[in-house]
Amino acid sequence: LQPKFPSTGTTIFTVMSALAQEHAAINLSQGFPDFPIDPKLGALVAEAINQGYNQYAPMTGLPALRQVLAAKIARFQQVTVDPDTEITITPGATYAIYTAFCTLLQPGDEVIVPEPAYDSYIPNIISSGGVPVPVSLDPADFSIDWDKIAAAITPRTKAIIVNNPHNPSGSTLQEQDLLQLQELAVQHNLYVIADEVYEHLVYDGAQHLSVLRYPELRARSFVTYSFGKALHSTGWKIGYMVAPPELSQAFRQMHQYLAFSVNTPMQQAIAGYLQDFDQLQATASFLQKKRDYFLQEMAQTRFTWLQPAQGSYFQVMDYSALSDLPDKEFAIWLTREHGVATIPLSSFCSQPVNSRRVRFCFAKQEATLEAAVARLKQV
Amino acid sequence: LQPKFPSTGTTIFTVMSALAQEHAAINLSQGFPDFPIDPKLGALVAEAINQGYNQYAPMTGLPALRQVLAAKIARFQQVTVDPDTEITITPGATYAIYTAFCTLLQPGDEVIVPEPAYDSYIPNIISSGGVPVPVSLDPADFSIDWDKIAAAITPRTKAIIVNNPHNPSGSTLQEQDLLQLQELAVQHNLYVIADEVYEHLVYDGAQHLSVLRYPELRARSFVTYSFGKALHSTGWKIGYMVAPPELSQAFRQMHQYLAFSVNTPMQQAIAGYLQDFDQLQATASFLQKKRDYFLQEMAQTRFTWLQPAQGSYFQVMDYSALSDLPDKEFAIWLTREHGVATIPLSSFCSQPVNSRRVRFCFAKQEATLEAAVARLKQV
Ligand SMILES: CSCCC(=O)C(=O)O
Ligand SMILES: CSCCC(=O)C(=O)O
Repeated sequence: LQPKFPSTGTTIFTVMSALAQEHAAINLSQGFPDFPIDPKLGALVAEAINQGYNQYAPMTGLPALRQVLAAKIARFQQVTVDPDTEITITPGATYAIYTAFCTLLQPGDEVIVPEPAYDSYIPNIISSGGVPVPVSLDPADFSIDWDKIAAAITPRTKAIIVNNPHNPSGSTLQEQDLLQLQELAVQHNLYVIADEVYEHLVYDGAQHLSVLRYPELRARSFVTYSFGKALHSTGWKIGYMVAPPELSQAFRQMHQYLAFSVNTPMQQAIAGYLQDFDQLQATASFLQKKRDYFLQEMAQTRFTWLQPAQGSYFQVMDYSALSDLPDKEFAIWLTREHGVATIPLSSFCSQPVNSRRVRFCFAKQEATLEAAVARLKQV
Repeated sequence: LQPKFPSTGTTIFTVMSALAQEHAAINLSQGFPDFPIDPKLGALVAEAINQGYNQYAPMTGLPALRQVLAAKIARFQQVTVDPDTEITITPGATYAIYTAFCTLLQPGDEVIVPEPAYDSYIPNIISSGGVPVPVSLDPADFSIDWDKIAAAITPRTKAIIVNNPHNPSGSTLQEQDLLQLQELAVQHNLYVIADEVYEHLVYDGAQHLSVLRYPELRARSFVTYSFGKALHSTGWKIGYMVAPPELSQAFRQMHQYLAFSVNTPMQQAIAGYLQDFDQLQATASFLQKKRDYFLQEMAQTRFTWLQPAQGSYFQVMDYSALSDLPDKEFAIWLTREHGVATIPLSSFCSQPVNSRRVRFCFAKQEATLEAAVARLKQV
């Protein structure tokens, strides 16, 4: 058996979460909260099930959910999206990104991937017949060097993927980044895959700038979101894809024979829950407090950081004052010897990198963060 | 944009369900029940959510669910399956079949598809780079003619897909079919994709014969199941794939970058619910009563049938005493003029067929079937 998929090991998230469990470590590796979801949301699922929302949803998603998403996008991004022709509900964002690559790529098409990058992008590109072209982010602040991106474009470049807010670094794109992206995409006729799953988790009063705000960019973009990140329910595995009608149509051709449709009662529950957008805005300050608490405590360890995360669940930390181990070995050692699991930054890179950095997930109860830092102080 | 997917229209299930809604027709087209799920199952979902089962499940599925599935297979098929290395939970069976084809096929690999066949198989094969080789089932009883299958095998044949119980016809495979399949698969070194989503819906006291019962067959098979069909919850979109360790490992390499994991609270709820296997056995007699009622009533119309469905949700009916219209036109006409939606049989065939047959879904409340037949008597 020779799967078309690149031969990869098990994902780092599976590896580290398993190692954490084996050593009863505090798991700050895989990105998921350890606090409960809003009980109102849970009650809405029970209600949907009792009301009989248990059979196939329409292939594109429940109309009620797509409508509330269009209203949400209007509220947060000030743009109009047509719920019928531009929004498709998916079983998670990873699936949506995979499906977009399948829809887009022909054999040999190149895709630019700023790195570090979420670990599914490159296998997805390869299994779709494409050729990933990694371009390093600035190691100091994880910003995109647009000259480097421009230099990586060839006549075979079909697309670029951007992730904003960025996993693993927590950096966010600024207005000038999006304008540069738009200019390059238009000039070179590129498609854009935008992974915006952390859209509601941006800190210090900043606004999330979606590619949807930029008309010429939006016209060539597949933009992905995840309810798991917005509602603290990563295990529900529901997301959505926003793309212009022509791209959505092609995406749905693929989706209708891949998963066909998505969990009906949870779609119904989320549609009911999202009637109130203010709670989404409260999510940012809720998580910012966790980031601030984590950094304040980490100041008492020998870990260092260049900048606080501007968004996402994650804070990158430098351990070079502590150890010379390569990051994967350090992460394993830290889990085993000190009982705190993290993700080594090199796991997000297809090329060898020599960083002394690991990623911590701070989307945890204060007690969890406190206990973890108590252990990290001993290192 | 030229998706790798074959250019197909919208699936017939979406088309007919939408048409049914537009004309306020009784929808006996798409296969889903209109009766409620067991309230116990719904309560278990609410409980799992309240207990905090809301974050990522392991990539392979919750251990508790995989264990109960292994016990279920032991009970119903009298074979041992290892829950850790041979079972993977998936977001539905359509996804599982797609992923199996992606795992298996290299460009140019041929796959034998007995037809009529579920409509995702052929697009899935093509989008994975394979070449579908349709072989007609016996039009009288929808049995597989193994000599025809043998004649279709070439040096490039990589796999065959079988669907038992069969959608759309409701026919089931017998012992001698499985032995013939095993012989051909071993002799020609073929992989087998077995779609057994209707495993618990077999009638008249028959037993479902899974490919898992035949060791040499099982060693080369991907076998797919769906909780949606077994638990009357088609909208939950949870299924699973059973395959030997080496095949499961390859399958998981793909799955981990495609959906990664599946709805956690619902996995937990299903694991709890399946502690009692007797209720699954009761499902067959529950649905058989619906089939019998439907046939008894249909005897008073001018539709005819060759044999009662031996399994599945579906009964094929011949309308040649009623109309000369091709089946797609007949199905549209029947929905519009008589308010009953069905699926034309030719939708399950890649080659033109000249049948006068449509498929009815009888997984409905008796009142629904009664109302539908009252309308059909007028035709
Ligand atoms: C699908 S597991 C990975 C979760 C996540 O987004 C992360 O930890 O980066
Ligand atoms: C995924 S919609 C199709 C449901 C079904 O299995 C059928 O109607 O054949």
